[in-house]
Amino acid sequence: MATEPQQRSALDTGRVETLADGVFAIAMTLLVFNINVPSLVHAAELPSKLFALWPRVLSYVISFVVLGVYWIGHHNQFAYIRRADRLFLWINILFLMCVAFIPFSAALLGQYPSQPIALVEYGANLIVVGAVLFVHWRYATSGRRLVDPKLDPALIRMASRRILRAPVAYVGAVALAFISVPVSLAIYALVPLLYILPGRIDQYWGRQPGRPPLTGAGSRPRNGG
Amino acid sequence: MATEPQQRSALDTGRVETLADGVFAIAMTLLVFNINVPSLVHAAELPSKLFALWPRVLSYVISFVVLGVYWIGHHNQFAYIRRADRLFLWINILFLMCVAFIPFSAALLGQYPSQPIALVEYGANLIVVGAVLFVHWRYATSGRRLVDPKLDPALIRMASRRILRAPVAYVGAVALAFISVPVSLAIYALVPLLYILPGRIDQYWGRQPGRPPLTGAGSRPRNGG
Amino acid sequence: MATEPQQRSALDTGRVETLADGVFAIAMTLLVFNINVPSLVHAAELPSKLFALWPRVLSYVISFVVLGVYWIGHHNQFAYIRRADRLFLWINILFLMCVAFIPFSAALLGQYPSQPIALVEYGANLIVVGAVLFVHWRYATSGRRLVDPKLDPALIRMASRRILRAPVAYVGAVALAFISVPVSLAIYALVPLLYILPGRIDQYWGRQPGRPPLTGAGSRPRNGG
Amino acid sequence: MATEPQQRSALDTGRVETLADGVFAIAMTLLVFNINVPSLVHAAELPSKLFALWPRVLSYVISFVVLGVYWIGHHNQFAYIRRADRLFLWINILFLMCVAFIPFSAALLGQYPSQPIALVEYGANLIVVGAVLFVHWRYATSGRRLVDPKLDPALIRMASRRILRAPVAYVGAVALAFISVPVSLAIYALVPLLYILPGRIDQYWGRQPGRPPLTGAGSRPRNGG
Repeated sequence: MATEPQQRSALDTGRVETLADGVFAIAMTLLVFNINVPSLVHAAELPSKLFALWPRVLSYVISFVVLGVYWIGHHNQFAYIRRADRLFLWINILFLMCVAFIPFSAALLGQYPSQPIALVEYGANLIVVGAVLFVHWRYATSGRRLVDPKLDPALIRMASRRILRAPVAYVGAVALAFISVPVSLAIYALVPLLYILPGRIDQYWGRQPGRPPLTGAGSRPRNGG
Repeated sequence: MATEPQQRSALDTGRVETLADGVFAIAMTLLVFNINVPSLVHAAELPSKLFALWPRVLSYVISFVVLGVYWIGHHNQFAYIRRADRLFLWINILFLMCVAFIPFSAALLGQYPSQPIALVEYGANLIVVGAVLFVHWRYATSGRRLVDPKLDPALIRMASRRILRAPVAYVGAVALAFISVPVSLAIYALVPLLYILPGRIDQYWGRQPGRPPLTGAGSRPRNGG
Repeated sequence: MATEPQQRSALDTGRVETLADGVFAIAMTLLVFNINVPSLVHAAELPSKLFALWPRVLSYVISFVVLGVYWIGHHNQFAYIRRADRLFLWINILFLMCVAFIPFSAALLGQYPSQPIALVEYGANLIVVGAVLFVHWRYATSGRRLVDPKLDPALIRMASRRILRAPVAYVGAVALAFISVPVSLAIYALVPLLYILPGRIDQYWGRQPGRPPLTGAGSRPRNGG
Repeated sequence: MATEPQQRSALDTGRVETLADGVFAIAMTLLVFNINVPSLVHAAELPSKLFALWPRVLSYVISFVVLGVYWIGHHNQFAYIRRADRLFLWINILFLMCVAFIPFSAALLGQYPSQPIALVEYGANLIVVGAVLFVHWRYATSGRRLVDPKLDPALIRMASRRILRAPVAYVGAVALAFISVPVSLAIYALVPLLYILPGRIDQYWGRQPGRPPLTGAGSRPRNGG
């Protein structure tokens, strides 16, 4: 009786998470298809032609890591979100629609890394993903709509600010694309460090093993022992 | 003893749902591969060539949202379906076969948005998906074959009508394809609103948190607190 | 304590099933990429060029249904398989390797439907998949290696024979490929009916709701109520 | 109360495993797209053109099996890993980034099987995957950071050595690529046998049914009966 998988309702968040995991895994794995094996006239060209693929490999690495950042961000939110409603489902569909567009933007950047327009389009895509992720969190938490009523307001604000770091940095990268392509590229490469390096929010992770990342209250640790 | 994952039987619906989530996630994510990075003669062409991709981007957005509509519809049904039988499994395979065809129809529409035949083929695909989803629900509920015997008949009818909205609207879009391509396209773009905007069925969502969407009885809320 | 997801061991079958569901969902969904949107010289060619895609659509339908047959077959086995061992894991990897090859065979058949060699290669792929599925069942059940010791021997034999139906029929299709391409194609199209239509094994499904398909004993129904 | 799916935290390992299963399933299934259906001038060419695909089929088989080896290795580690932290999540993202690159390396090898540089790139990819998997295990187990404090040190060392077998052998294959292409290829083909054939670690599997593969202590068997 404790586990009734058929009892999954439209208000259950598990289904959204499964779909999201699928979309992220596929978007990540398909990025490599932007890197084509070169055609050769002479066999001796192979090393140099492989080396010439470096912008595509760079785009692959940056995009894979960005998808990792957003995947972790999306999942962390679900550690606090208790239920769904119709509009929330559609915010998720919109979020995934923007995530699934990243392989195109990554292909564009890998193929035309020196074109400002490619950098702008890439940044615009990432900004939209980040903005929708922010809306996702605000919608779920405003008035404690879909989260625990006792969720710490300080944590809600801290998470909101944390989510906004990436899109704000990408606005900078887009603005700089017309001034200096390498600086803009460097921003794309470095933004994930804002999420990989430990931050203030990690106090909540570290303080007690098995506790969710964003709150110090209202949640039961899963691996308590 | 409460969780015996090996005990999954052919009559369990979990396996069908997992396969369906996979097919939907892949079909959604692969839609972006219908948008190819343009080849250039001069670098200056890039902005205009990117702009010329708009019919493909439109097809991407419409198709992603349509897949979202059908994914939510399929899942909502499973909130009430308690078991499977052989024919039900095959209705699901047929459903997924039609869903997995949508990326082709979307590519056709994105490449030939002004050709009536492309609009017809796209609509025919969506009509068939909707019709199979309707059969899926009727098969499961007629005589309460695969659902709770106490499931409210008013809800069964309301869900049936709701499922039929999309294919009926798409019949209109197909008919109009030969008269006005933009009107037909507009219908494809607007139909999802029938499902995104709140409707009568949402009373069942809103009345009690944690309760499945289509019934007011016979189901145990998962997030009761 | 009832749910310890970290406690999944190499002897647990859940992980294999997850990987298999993923491979099947992807192989099914990618079949549609064998159907390319035609390039046109004149817009008026579109209907006829679309119609010319019928062999590819036929190959899509047959292959999707075949993947459905094998997916159901693989899953039904896991209703009885209680644990895994190293060799069993590798039989599964081999099985999935052959399953994931089907999109190539389907592309070959869709592109050269009148070439006997394409029919032979397609059949050979399907025969190997069926044979590995048979080995999978025999390995798990011989000496009750990985199943319940009380599993009914009559059911083990019935399932074995049932698994062999498809590869045996495909041997016929391969042999006939050199004599009559349409007859061979017809066999490929009709074999799934051996699995879709109700059979003797369905007595075990029908007798008691919620009971696994192949045994009448030794299993606890999941939806007992 | 026993199952609270919403309670999944950033410290839960389940989400990483789901993403990993997705990436592996997709990478495996997409390998077949490196084998293209040949274009023909005369129908009679088909058999010989199909036969000419053998290097790509060989690359498919080797790469699928290698992905199987690493998938099993990654999962076996999670039988002991109890929790995650931020850096551990990112080691996993890095691991998956290298795994998702294998389809490119496989395509390169399949297209240029006689070019030493293709063998080197393929080997380098596999070495990096193995090295990251080793770091993954060391990070989780050093100081019992993310595992059970009572985990047997002998088993930790045995697993470490076992993980290193493949990358060490691949270093040999890379070195030999410039001397003898067939010997190098043979190493790639044979390395998986180091993991498929039973080994010392299997004592831990065989001794007690339902027990995790790498430890004889500190874990509760799942299928105890």
